[in-house]
Amino acid sequence: MRAVDLIERKRDGGALLPEEIDFFVAGYARGDIPDYQAAALAMAVFFRGMDPAETRALTESMMRSGEVLDLSDLPGPKADKHSTGGVGDKTSLVLAPLAAACGVVVPMISGRALGHTGGTLDKLESIPGFRVGLDLARFRSVLSRCGLSFIGQTPEIAPADRRLYALRDVTATVESQPLIAASIMSKKMAEGIEALVLDVKCGDGAFLREREHARELALTMMGIGRSMGCRVGALLTAMDQPLGRNVGNALEVAESVETLKGRGPKDLESLSVELAARMIELAQGLTIEAARAKVREALASGAGLQKLRDVIEAQGGEPRVCDDSSSMLPRARDTEVVCSPRDGRVVRLSARAIGRAAMMLGAGRDTVDGSIDPGVGFVFHKKVGDPVAVNEAIVTAHVGSRARLDDAMAELRSAIEVDTQAPAPAPLVLEILT
Amino acid sequence: MRAVDLIERKRDGGALLPEEIDFFVAGYARGDIPDYQAAALAMAVFFRGMDPAETRALTESMMRSGEVLDLSDLPGPKADKHSTGGVGDKTSLVLAPLAAACGVVVPMISGRALGHTGGTLDKLESIPGFRVGLDLARFRSVLSRCGLSFIGQTPEIAPADRRLYALRDVTATVESQPLIAASIMSKKMAEGIEALVLDVKCGDGAFLREREHARELALTMMGIGRSMGCRVGALLTAMDQPLGRNVGNALEVAESVETLKGRGPKDLESLSVELAARMIELAQGLTIEAARAKVREALASGAGLQKLRDVIEAQGGEPRVCDDSSSMLPRARDTEVVCSPRDGRVVRLSARAIGRAAMMLGAGRDTVDGSIDPGVGFVFHKKVGDPVAVNEAIVTAHVGSRARLDDAMAELRSAIEVDTQAPAPAPLVLEILT
Repeated sequence: MRAVDLIERKRDGGALLPEEIDFFVAGYARGDIPDYQAAALAMAVFFRGMDPAETRALTESMMRSGEVLDLSDLPGPKADKHSTGGVGDKTSLVLAPLAAACGVVVPMISGRALGHTGGTLDKLESIPGFRVGLDLARFRSVLSRCGLSFIGQTPEIAPADRRLYALRDVTATVESQPLIAASIMSKKMAEGIEALVLDVKCGDGAFLREREHARELALTMMGIGRSMGCRVGALLTAMDQPLGRNVGNALEVAESVETLKGRGPKDLESLSVELAARMIELAQGLTIEAARAKVREALASGAGLQKLRDVIEAQGGEPRVCDDSSSMLPRARDTEVVCSPRDGRVVRLSARAIGRAAMMLGAGRDTVDGSIDPGVGFVFHKKVGDPVAVNEAIVTAHVGSRARLDDAMAELRSAIEVDTQAPAPAPLVLEILT
Repeated sequence: MRAVDLIERKRDGGALLPEEIDFFVAGYARGDIPDYQAAALAMAVFFRGMDPAETRALTESMMRSGEVLDLSDLPGPKADKHSTGGVGDKTSLVLAPLAAACGVVVPMISGRALGHTGGTLDKLESIPGFRVGLDLARFRSVLSRCGLSFIGQTPEIAPADRRLYALRDVTATVESQPLIAASIMSKKMAEGIEALVLDVKCGDGAFLREREHARELALTMMGIGRSMGCRVGALLTAMDQPLGRNVGNALEVAESVETLKGRGPKDLESLSVELAARMIELAQGLTIEAARAKVREALASGAGLQKLRDVIEAQGGEPRVCDDSSSMLPRARDTEVVCSPRDGRVVRLSARAIGRAAMMLGAGRDTVDGSIDPGVGFVFHKKVGDPVAVNEAIVTAHVGSRARLDDAMAELRSAIEVDTQAPAPAPLVLEILT
């Protein structure tokens, strides 16, 4: 078997057999197949796609290039959630503690911020002392103790995906549905979970703008997961404005704590509850109504907040952020307020522009090795549809000393539109795929 | 400027500017842009193509990555011919001496055999002592003395093309018209020639089977050459059966000598004369009729043969191959004859299968570092359309000790078809593009 023949077949629109994909992925992970052949294959896949059998084989080969967790010694079903990424999306910090409080073990392996979207790991690292770089033994021990743990992709998990993802990033082959689906699912399936809920976002601030593309990706990932014996459900959700009111790492942790106290914004609370309920439904075999009631109870009783406190403490972080987040979390040096230029209603808060503005302030990074300023970000006092008076504050920017401050504020202003016409109210959950 | 952005633009169907292409090619030649980005771009070009301005820019950037010969100190116009490759195609060995005898300087930089097609350098190396690895100073000196010289691509000529070609070979990106055209033309335009004749082959034994694809490639190369100030013409020629009667390195040298003595097969003689005449026409501004007469005269007078003798001697080879090629050239150990199974006419001699069979015998190589057996090959006693009697010899195979002898003979037999129905006579020159 020669790599060049497989590239040629894919280039010409043919399908690769599972053993051929495994030959390529295993060879690539070992270093026998060079980056240039993987880059050529990735570009051929960009143009030709992969059928479900190929995508599943790619997922499985990348998963098997590393360690696949076996959590069967931990009591209770294991489940996780994956979001394709958005602006202000801190649902993981809310739903994972809620699901754990309901008796589901949540082994969450997350990513970092890149481009205009945030990353769970960066948010958690804004908590003083919190360590996301646990090895697998320590991960297992936190899981056993708390029922949840948050870590980054370790070298043992899907190393072929790690290498391929870095390559795709510099060869303009990121935007390929089968490659995206296989990358996500190879890591999730390595977690040793029995159930997975996907939050596939679409709209202005999502990497997929079109709902039909989001649905297609969701169905591809569901097909992969199910063929590998995992129960998978998906929500298609709108990502046109930021989720919740806060954007920025420490600000999002604070909002998550507030939400677990029952004082969070409605959109964040309802989406977090719905995603957690879907996890419970799939993992514990409850009806969705019973699952929702269970999650609501974990929220109301404070059991969810207690789980967050437990996991923060278990991973070396300062648990008092759950009591007084404003004094325990890093804060930006200054604030600047953007006010409404007229009476009317907020008709647009472009998530993409807001995400870019936050990145310019230092809340995110535009290259993988960029640094993060944990305190900066935005607090929105108004969301789309809210009435606003002239000169009334729409958003407070928490800003540091970054050189790109003026650019960031200009980008933020460009994201906001106020008009006299009220926009049609748009749902957050667009579709539920079961 | 970032390489990944250029790859993305091409991937999405956009055009690259000349300075962007130059940034990529120069960076690649220097080693600043890695193979994996070049592989991704090549695959994107495979799918999206390049417009004439891009193809010309690519040619020019690859040409300028190395030395561009200035032969203006040599008297007389400089011209060359390029063939896209075929089986039994030894026209270079015939036409270059003829053109030189007519007063054109022919600085011919050629390639080696790969796959089922032969290479001029391998043929010349079957002449005892002949050296094709001259440096540019020695090349210039032979040109000055003989009016022609044959060498291989030196490290100074188009090094970016050299590197990219090797990469395309292992990334399934060889078969792209703009990449093929730019690769060929970057080397030819580095020769410092004023006129170029292209022999673009199509059919069973050519790398382009379809005539329309051959025409498209010819027009692309003509456009590139003309935009760079070179006079370019092209012939589309049939490559369904081998050209001439001999296939294999020493056997083809012998046949070339015979042709320069006026005793060669008609198809080889007429195509060689026609191509040489086109070179003269473009280089010296003669009518094609006057150019043909001049070439015919050089053939009849023996001036062409004398030029071949001169260049062989100047490049260290044994000039007596021009007198007695059968005893001066390497010969295979044994012969095997394939006879006709029935009375009838030869209706097919598949050039591709014959080329593959020759490669299996050792006349060519299937990898770039494979070795060559100079004496092996085939002598066809019958060509397509010839009547043949049952048990009459069609071809004599000159065979060595290669392990793949049985496979080669089976492949050879599969190439031959004899039927009672006479095939329609097919022209060799399909189209002349001026």
